[in-house]
Amino acid sequence: MQIGMIGLGRMGANMVRRLMQAHHSCVVWDNSRKAVEALAADGAETAENLRDLVRRLGKPRVVWLMVPAGFVDGVIGELAPLLESGDILVDGGNSHYRDSMSRAWRLNEHDIHFLDIGVSGGIWGLERGYCLMIGGEAESVRKLHPVFRALAPPHEAASRTPERANSEPAGAEQGYLHCGPNGAGHFVKMVHNGIEYGLMAAYAEGFNILKNAGIGLESQAHDAETTPLRNPEYYRFDFNLPEIAELWRRGSVVRSWMLDLAASALWQSPELDKFSGHVSDSGEGRWTAAAAIDEGVPAPVLSAALFQRFSSRDRSEFADKFLSALRWQFGGHREKS
Amino acid sequence: MQIGMIGLGRMGANMVRRLMQAHHSCVVWDNSRKAVEALAADGAETAENLRDLVRRLGKPRVVWLMVPAGFVDGVIGELAPLLESGDILVDGGNSHYRDSMSRAWRLNEHDIHFLDIGVSGGIWGLERGYCLMIGGEAESVRKLHPVFRALAPPHEAASRTPERANSEPAGAEQGYLHCGPNGAGHFVKMVHNGIEYGLMAAYAEGFNILKNAGIGLESQAHDAETTPLRNPEYYRFDFNLPEIAELWRRGSVVRSWMLDLAASALWQSPELDKFSGHVSDSGEGRWTAAAAIDEGVPAPVLSAALFQRFSSRDRSEFADKFLSALRWQFGGHREKS
Amino acid sequence: MQIGMIGLGRMGANMVRRLMQAHHSCVVWDNSRKAVEALAADGAETAENLRDLVRRLGKPRVVWLMVPAGFVDGVIGELAPLLESGDILVDGGNSHYRDSMSRAWRLNEHDIHFLDIGVSGGIWGLERGYCLMIGGEAESVRKLHPVFRALAPPHEAASRTPERANSEPAGAEQGYLHCGPNGAGHFVKMVHNGIEYGLMAAYAEGFNILKNAGIGLESQAHDAETTPLRNPEYYRFDFNLPEIAELWRRGSVVRSWMLDLAASALWQSPELDKFSGHVSDSGEGRWTAAAAIDEGVPAPVLSAALFQRFSSRDRSEFADKFLSALRWQFGGHREKS
Amino acid sequence: MQIGMIGLGRMGANMVRRLMQAHHSCVVWDNSRKAVEALAADGAETAENLRDLVRRLGKPRVVWLMVPAGFVDGVIGELAPLLESGDILVDGGNSHYRDSMSRAWRLNEHDIHFLDIGVSGGIWGLERGYCLMIGGEAESVRKLHPVFRALAPPHEAASRTPERANSEPAGAEQGYLHCGPNGAGHFVKMVHNGIEYGLMAAYAEGFNILKNAGIGLESQAHDAETTPLRNPEYYRFDFNLPEIAELWRRGSVVRSWMLDLAASALWQSPELDKFSGHVSDSGEGRWTAAAAIDEGVPAPVLSAALFQRFSSRDRSEFADKFLSALRWQFGGHREKS
Repeated sequence: MQIGMIGLGRMGANMVRRLMQAHHSCVVWDNSRKAVEALAADGAETAENLRDLVRRLGKPRVVWLMVPAGFVDGVIGELAPLLESGDILVDGGNSHYRDSMSRAWRLNEHDIHFLDIGVSGGIWGLERGYCLMIGGEAESVRKLHPVFRALAPPHEAASRTPERANSEPAGAEQGYLHCGPNGAGHFVKMVHNGIEYGLMAAYAEGFNILKNAGIGLESQAHDAETTPLRNPEYYRFDFNLPEIAELWRRGSVVRSWMLDLAASALWQSPELDKFSGHVSDSGEGRWTAAAAIDEGVPAPVLSAALFQRFSSRDRSEFADKFLSALRWQFGGHREKS
Repeated sequence: MQIGMIGLGRMGANMVRRLMQAHHSCVVWDNSRKAVEALAADGAETAENLRDLVRRLGKPRVVWLMVPAGFVDGVIGELAPLLESGDILVDGGNSHYRDSMSRAWRLNEHDIHFLDIGVSGGIWGLERGYCLMIGGEAESVRKLHPVFRALAPPHEAASRTPERANSEPAGAEQGYLHCGPNGAGHFVKMVHNGIEYGLMAAYAEGFNILKNAGIGLESQAHDAETTPLRNPEYYRFDFNLPEIAELWRRGSVVRSWMLDLAASALWQSPELDKFSGHVSDSGEGRWTAAAAIDEGVPAPVLSAALFQRFSSRDRSEFADKFLSALRWQFGGHREKS
Repeated sequence: MQIGMIGLGRMGANMVRRLMQAHHSCVVWDNSRKAVEALAADGAETAENLRDLVRRLGKPRVVWLMVPAGFVDGVIGELAPLLESGDILVDGGNSHYRDSMSRAWRLNEHDIHFLDIGVSGGIWGLERGYCLMIGGEAESVRKLHPVFRALAPPHEAASRTPERANSEPAGAEQGYLHCGPNGAGHFVKMVHNGIEYGLMAAYAEGFNILKNAGIGLESQAHDAETTPLRNPEYYRFDFNLPEIAELWRRGSVVRSWMLDLAASALWQSPELDKFSGHVSDSGEGRWTAAAAIDEGVPAPVLSAALFQRFSSRDRSEFADKFLSALRWQFGGHREKS
Repeated sequence: MQIGMIGLGRMGANMVRRLMQAHHSCVVWDNSRKAVEALAADGAETAENLRDLVRRLGKPRVVWLMVPAGFVDGVIGELAPLLESGDILVDGGNSHYRDSMSRAWRLNEHDIHFLDIGVSGGIWGLERGYCLMIGGEAESVRKLHPVFRALAPPHEAASRTPERANSEPAGAEQGYLHCGPNGAGHFVKMVHNGIEYGLMAAYAEGFNILKNAGIGLESQAHDAETTPLRNPEYYRFDFNLPEIAELWRRGSVVRSWMLDLAASALWQSPELDKFSGHVSDSGEGRWTAAAAIDEGVPAPVLSAALFQRFSSRDRSEFADKFLSALRWQFGGHREKS
């Protein structure tokens, strides 16, 4: 099939490459000239601008957006008037699912079809395939099956779930899933990323506990502002974190792809000293927590993971000063530097 | 009565003053000469050292410790051989209740009585009285009633609980309570401080939310590492925090003594810029969380308050770096500075 | 002044009474005939319906709504066409501040003034006064000062904040505060209630830890599904919770109005056995957590308090089953009944 | 080698089978006659009692315990007098690492060597191998290498970490690791299980959010005790959870062995209705949280996961009643049934 791809960042560019490897033809555009040229060199047809991109596509057109969430409305605003009845517009970025629902409703009024697709796979997707969570009408989803098959990992990417192994690989085993009507794709992706935050934090906290297990070897302050460690003899370990991460990759209950990556990162630098520890969050973790609140279901782990990221960026500063101020007020406690 | 007071810090010194105001006589010692002299000037009898202090006390003696938790064992080790059968030793500091139980068991073997007393009141206690949570045998508690009455706030310090108002003020209304056998006093004080952490954090988070309610006025980054604020028009407030703290002190559900202090602190400095936000924890918050874990009861709020203090002191540093390292590994996400 | 009050539930009815005690005249309506008659007996002028209420008010009219958040739009929809340029409409209920902003914008188009006022005080407000957090234009706020003064607690309701004591009581000391433009009143009330959730949870967790401090007296299961309590000798307490609550009301750092109420509740029933423990949440706690997420500031305590309420209503049921299912899958662990 | 195995539950029995498959010889005992006979049928030598087991082993003996944590002291108490200088005793169960340290110290006095080994793998270990985290002296560890190799998964169980792929598989890649001196094995296992709790909870919360994403289709209560869902149109999804779990197994960032198991469990029963949702905890989660507290490092995610398990077993009951009681006190709010 022919696909127009708008947005050639880390994700979009590699998706184009994977599509071309499967003999789909791609027309590409990005506001970075350099990004466009890199793909031209890899065989993609390039467009001068959005109008040109639309012009180069056969009808009904398939246009796929891979742009940051904050730019989607701008691009759609420019693009929609250029599209025609029957065209399919895909947003494969990390848009809020509510925006995707609104956009679908608006585009549908002009008989333009819209799919919201959550894409997971990161920089590894080119080689291993992208996990696709799809929202939209069944008819448009059906039309894009060849595209999805090209992007998705092969079913062999995972061992068969034993209960399913008696029949041919089907449904989600193909690495993509029509999750429901518009919004469903980005909703599932949102929760996926919320879980991701929780998983990452679970490992991070655990490795931090291992990292600090030698605290009993440090000399202990003895003053009214400090809790002396009660049993320093139990905290005299000096753990080899890269080896522990590697160990857990085999046979243990906590093995995962994320742990594979942690083993790489810790092997490269056991102290992780290339990093400052200011952890960004790109939206889905927030939206997942907000969805839990709307639904009235508890999400203490996912929200704790989110809030820890905020704290890592010093967003609790005033709250912390407030605590010190109160301690000073009631107890005359001075802050330790 | 005559009381020997060891430890003349913020708490101990003022407790001596309050006792003397009630015509108890005090023999005092501290390893700071200056602290001792200050109380001598206020009328206390001073001792040269522990042996001298014990010598100056009539039998059966009452010796009260107000020293940091980390020094209690040292002082008791020196003091115990000087005491005699029937003497009463009080630990009014923030010792772990398990230590108090062990100390009581050891001292009881030599027929020395031990009371563990949690004392709340901070720098305000001199004027308003100290709330006393007492653990130990009933007989020793009974002997010290005059001391407790002098230290505790008058029952008028709070309005009568309506259900109790038909009878004379009794029991806990006197501002002190025999909570149970040894350990009970410091256990109740431990939980008291655990609650204190939770209360402080609740206010701190709330005021931080108010403080940041103008975030919609800031320009928003638009890139793959940043979540744009979806509805900046709803976050354009510029709240007067000192006035809001003051407001809530009257008629609102969240009024409390802590809020009184917050109103003072915010009035003095709405930005709290004297403080850096590195918040100490002095042990009881940790022990309360650990007790909840031992008991198998949930304490998500109290432990979140505790962990936020750890974070304020950068104790999540390695965990945060770990998160950034993983983000880099799977998504090629660079940290923002 | 003359005020029209719509909604005569626990809050509205008592606010009318407090207004009439201050010699304001009130025209009242509620869809419960009984509620209307109760206030007629207390001296209020009653209306047959909204139209009649509006008709009975002198111009410019002041109409105050005290209805559940879910009904506000319906009432305004019916009421707005009856109002005229210059009238003032007040929403004193627990509306979402964003709704208040939208309503203000719509009403302003018809030159109807709108105030969003957060009201705290509960069933105690009649006697002690209501804490008022006000959002809207300064001009309308000014006009209602006499009403606010009547509703608010006297400044004597709290001791003077020492730093303010040199000048006459002013500003928030009057028990009401103009917090900012429309939305500000309900925003501050929202955060107020978020804090309230956190405070309540801090006490609840603390008292639960005290309640379970005798767990070492119970016999301990010894099997692969159970953690034996390591040191049962440290958990053999039997605390008197009503007395501890009463104790902390005097001199302690955790004293508060909420603790006053806890002392009453525990005195009435130390086991609190009239209650099932399914804890409702009425919105503001959710909105506060969501605002923290929008602002990107951590709120681990306030959100933990919220989620515990969800859990108390069994909203984690599927998540819990999921955990049991995983434990069965990887370890063959059966659930204990 | 010859190994004496004590404790033939789910773990111990299969470890014996895996050892015998690798041509080690095993002498086994359990207090369940049936468990012993099952292994006799599989070729193990059986002992009548502990004394008999020790008698049947060649010197220096290797005795491995796989018994619940609560029974270890009893078994060691009976066993130690039967052992001799140079024998090696292994505790492969889920003992607290501090107990392992104390036991090692005591046994070392009698020149009996002790290893604390955390074993992960659950019911899948027989086929796939067990991940072994080992604490103790290097010399004893070295002697047992053949045993560890037999029990551990082959290095092929995971793909090579790219950074290590240039050299032969070594160290932790063999599926077992000498983590440090006594206590280190059970410490690392403890943190491993703490992480496990966090991971499980992250998935559980995420799937619960998906499960409840149709809440907008339910009719909404409108009263003062209920928050109406503000935008029901955004919560009308009906997700296929087994398919979503299966989907995420391929290409997504959250793929893991735990997710593999979740896919099985959900495929078997999408409602998980065989389970009640009372989730046990077997100790390590508690100890991990306590270690974090001792070290002064934040563990909000791991502790939230732990506390949610406590809540699932109704251990927050009194706290929840307390909240309802306060709501009744200040607002006259009745509980909804």
